Amino acid sequence: MATVNRIAILAVGLIGGSLAMAVKANGFAREVIGWGRRESSLEKAKSLGVIDDYSLDLSEAVRDADIVVIATPTLIAEKVLHQLAGIVDSKTVITDAASVKGNLLRAAKEAFGEVPANLVLGHPIAGSEKSGVTAAKVDLYKNHRVILTPTEETCHEAQSLIANMWESTGADVVSMPVAEHDEILAATSHLPHILAYALVDALAGHRDTSSSENVHNIFRFAAGGFRDFTRIASSDPKMWHDISLANRDALLRMIDLFSHGLADLREAIAGEDSEAIFASFDRAKAARDEFSDILAKQNQSTITDE
Amino acid sequence: MATVNRIAILAVGLIGGSLAMAVKANGFAREVIGWGRRESSLEKAKSLGVIDDYSLDLSEAVRDADIVVIATPTLIAEKVLHQLAGIVDSKTVITDAASVKGNLLRAAKEAFGEVPANLVLGHPIAGSEKSGVTAAKVDLYKNHRVILTPTEETCHEAQSLIANMWESTGADVVSMPVAEHDEILAATSHLPHILAYALVDALAGHRDTSSSENVHNIFRFAAGGFRDFTRIASSDPKMWHDISLANRDALLRMIDLFSHGLADLREAIAGEDSEAIFASFDRAKAARDEFSDILAKQNQSTITDE
Repeated sequence: MATVNRIAILAVGLIGGSLAMAVKANGFAREVIGWGRRESSLEKAKSLGVIDDYSLDLSEAVRDADIVVIATPTLIAEKVLHQLAGIVDSKTVITDAASVKGNLLRAAKEAFGEVPANLVLGHPIAGSEKSGVTAAKVDLYKNHRVILTPTEETCHEAQSLIANMWESTGADVVSMPVAEHDEILAATSHLPHILAYALVDALAGHRDTSSSENVHNIFRFAAGGFRDFTRIASSDPKMWHDISLANRDALLRMIDLFSHGLADLREAIAGEDSEAIFASFDRAKAARDEFSDILAKQNQSTITDE
Repeated sequence: MATVNRIAILAVGLIGGSLAMAVKANGFAREVIGWGRRESSLEKAKSLGVIDDYSLDLSEAVRDADIVVIATPTLIAEKVLHQLAGIVDSKTVITDAASVKGNLLRAAKEAFGEVPANLVLGHPIAGSEKSGVTAAKVDLYKNHRVILTPTEETCHEAQSLIANMWESTGADVVSMPVAEHDEILAATSHLPHILAYALVDALAGHRDTSSSENVHNIFRFAAGGFRDFTRIASSDPKMWHDISLANRDALLRMIDLFSHGLADLREAIAGEDSEAIFASFDRAKAARDEFSDILAKQNQSTITDE
């Protein structure tokens, strides 16, 4: 497996910090340099041994790096690509860890004038409700999926290098087109977050217009189904605001797909159309049970791997 | 605490069977008689010691019962009320355990010509993904809420007796109007189920029209948030069909409340209206975090109670 001399990690929080810990621990990188806006945070990362050194100056941080990993929040990653355009040469491979890929591909085209051959956009499907470098852990990516989204312009060696980097962390690496990634993530992650936020916001607002008796009742009598269904509504509003804008078009298509389905189901219930209600519930249950089977097999392989 | 000589449980599955086990174990009832449509199931319940005896004849099953508990599925409970009208006198208190109360209040008015003073509709907020008498357990209701929905016509002694029955199982009993119960349950339970079914059905249908590559991808790359969010889409379609029709009007109001909120959020995302997006996400997160606090306190009191 290829190894590198130096990796620069731009923003050393949960995502960047966990990657830094993994590539140092498994010997994929000899040295990891951090960059960020707050020196106190970088100092903390260095004192924890997550990074070897850091700089507040981007040019200095990425100098002589074999790989530059953009691990900032989604919308800041666009700006970082513009900043990198002037200071990184084609020998350095650039990658990222953001949740949306289409906006970064567009930003790269604008910043570099074309899609650079040394750019390999990627997305580790891993996270935590915690954030910051103190939440970073060496095995965050172990048995998690990482999706790389190379384009026709992408250099094969660059792609292999980034695949090797993630594989060294124990991740399962797959590749797919940018548009497919963004649609899948819109469907399975971004849309559910929007629905959870919309539901809790609607109910919270409804409480205010109901009798005072209702103010606490709606939540007091909520059971396990509601708890699980709404857990993601406690997610960071800034992060999800950014993702909603970054993946706007795919997300809007998914909201519309869902809204049309819900409107059909509403009509079936309003018209007491048992056949249509059963058809929808049965299809959904069959698909969700299939998903449970997939999850069970993944857990099985996880146990086997360990 | 009042105790009774005989309780008749109409349908001895998870809900009725667990109640039977609890009232016998804690001495609230001297004898529990089961009724149902399948003798094999009742025989099983008797051999497990869940009930003392059973009858396939409703008149015989409820004879001399102090309390009759309708523990059938939601829509069948309406029919059972009609059957009981001719055979139960006012000395027997009738109650139920179904998820919707408005449809049963209407059925009772039709069946008895008025709301009987000896009818105390109720709803234990407890359940399991399992069903049937073999899933019944003596502590199913312990530390769970039971909502009673007495009306102006309800006899106070009847209400106290049913409250005592549920308290004897370890449940926390509260009372509220029928309409309030049905609205709260529509908001916190019935609507989330509809949204989960609609989401999984929409995505499953979407897969079929996408490239074959997508068929398994959408679920393969789903993470923990999607798993939790869609778990309730594996619920029993028959049960949720019945609940959707039984609580149709409150559920339609909640679907509309949600749909309007989602449409507003969609417009905010389409128009890149950051202020509106943040306002919605922030309100939702604050409300969901408040709900987490309520849950944490409930768990705290549960620990203290045990």
